[in-house]
Amino acid sequence: MSDQPWLPTLITSTPQEGYELAIKLSRMGVKSTQPNVELLKKMRPDYAENADSLTKASQVIAINFQTVAAANNYWR
Amino acid sequence: MSDQPWLPTLITSTPQEGYELAIKLSRMGVKSTQPNVELLKKMRPDYAENADSLTKASQVIAINFQTVAAANNYWR
Amino acid sequence: MSDQPWLPTLITSTPQEGYELAIKLSRMGVKSTQPNVELLKKMRPDYAENADSLTKASQVIAINFQTVAAANNYWR
Amino acid sequence: MSDQPWLPTLITSTPQEGYELAIKLSRMGVKSTQPNVELLKKMRPDYAENADSLTKASQVIAINFQTVAAANNYWR
Amino acid sequence: MSDQPWLPTLITSTPQEGYELAIKLSRMGVKSTQPNVELLKKMRPDYAENADSLTKASQVIAINFQTVAAANNYWR
Amino acid sequence: MSDQPWLPTLITSTPQEGYELAIKLSRMGVKSTQPNVELLKKMRPDYAENADSLTKASQVIAINFQTVAAANNYWR
Repeated sequence: MSDQPWLPTLITSTPQEGYELAIKLSRMGVKSTQPNVELLKKMRPDYAENADSLTKASQVIAINFQTVAAANNYWR
Repeated sequence: MSDQPWLPTLITSTPQEGYELAIKLSRMGVKSTQPNVELLKKMRPDYAENADSLTKASQVIAINFQTVAAANNYWR
Repeated sequence: MSDQPWLPTLITSTPQEGYELAIKLSRMGVKSTQPNVELLKKMRPDYAENADSLTKASQVIAINFQTVAAANNYWR
Repeated sequence: MSDQPWLPTLITSTPQEGYELAIKLSRMGVKSTQPNVELLKKMRPDYAENADSLTKASQVIAINFQTVAAANNYWR
Repeated sequence: MSDQPWLPTLITSTPQEGYELAIKLSRMGVKSTQPNVELLKKMRPDYAENADSLTKASQVIAINFQTVAAANNYWR
Repeated sequence: MSDQPWLPTLITSTPQEGYELAIKLSRMGVKSTQPNVELLKKMRPDYAENADSLTKASQVIAINFQTVAAANNYWR
């Protein structure tokens, strides 16, 4: 991971921004295991054109969205 | 994702509307990884006619429904 | 999903009724992706006679039961 | 499921009894999808002798144990 | 499971002991489905030398650690 | 696991450090099942070059991040 802070806060203005942060968290989980961006791009068709892989990706986002939503007290 | 806000709030009037929002969140998770709608339609038989894929889809909805239900204080 | 409300409330009288609601939620997750009931029936042997598929189905019920149990304050 | 109530309460005396209840909940999730006990027995070697299947079974128990533990306020 | 209580409490002195309890809970989930220890030993290479199986095992531990950490109020 | 404490606390200064702790927890879950570091290194291409394996790894991190984030009261 880069020296630049990529996750300064879990607080967002809106649920949608929270969802986008959940997507970012999910991608950082992938990058922390495979930091080679070129390799990740090559793998893209393996999951982006596979229905089950997309469902799995959506699941990771859903788990991270639980965290972000709780952090923001559900934007109530 | 489009410029139009698609997730203005997690609050819904009824549990059922909350469940429908959970379905929407699950689909947005897929679309965020594969935005090509034509490709998604082509993949549809891959999961919509496969029992395990349907169970996995139901699982993502269940996780998102946990978030929406908590946001709505379970519509108590 | 039909026009009839199928999820008017998450509140149940007993834990067991809550568990049955969790089963219902899990099935609605499947139906929301594949509304064709005839097709779902045809797929039944694919998962109902496969140990791993049954475990996966039990997992979705477990996730939904978490939601229903929290909604009912665990019937304490 | 039988007419006899099998889940009268989520409250248990000890964490270990709570864990046993989590096992029971996991099995009822399987039985709710496949009520034929003879068929379930025949499938037993498919998962009881497969490492990944055992891990998956342990995961469902872990999810149900979260629910039971929360219901019991973690037996604190 | 043996007559000896193996889970007297979810409370631990430190986060690390809590993590070790989460490992124990994950293993008991496996043993509750397959109590034959000799068979479990034979299966060991099936998962201990398979990257995805190790990830799955780590996931079950993570779920159990959520429970143990909450029980201990996160050792705050 | 070594005699050195590797998990003295779940508290971190920032969300990003919390995320890094979640990565560490996920790896310790793998190591607790397969402590042989040489073997783990050999397996690395099996998952680090496989899209679904990377998604699964990201999921375990997401689950552990839920725990760490709650422990830190979401760094609010």
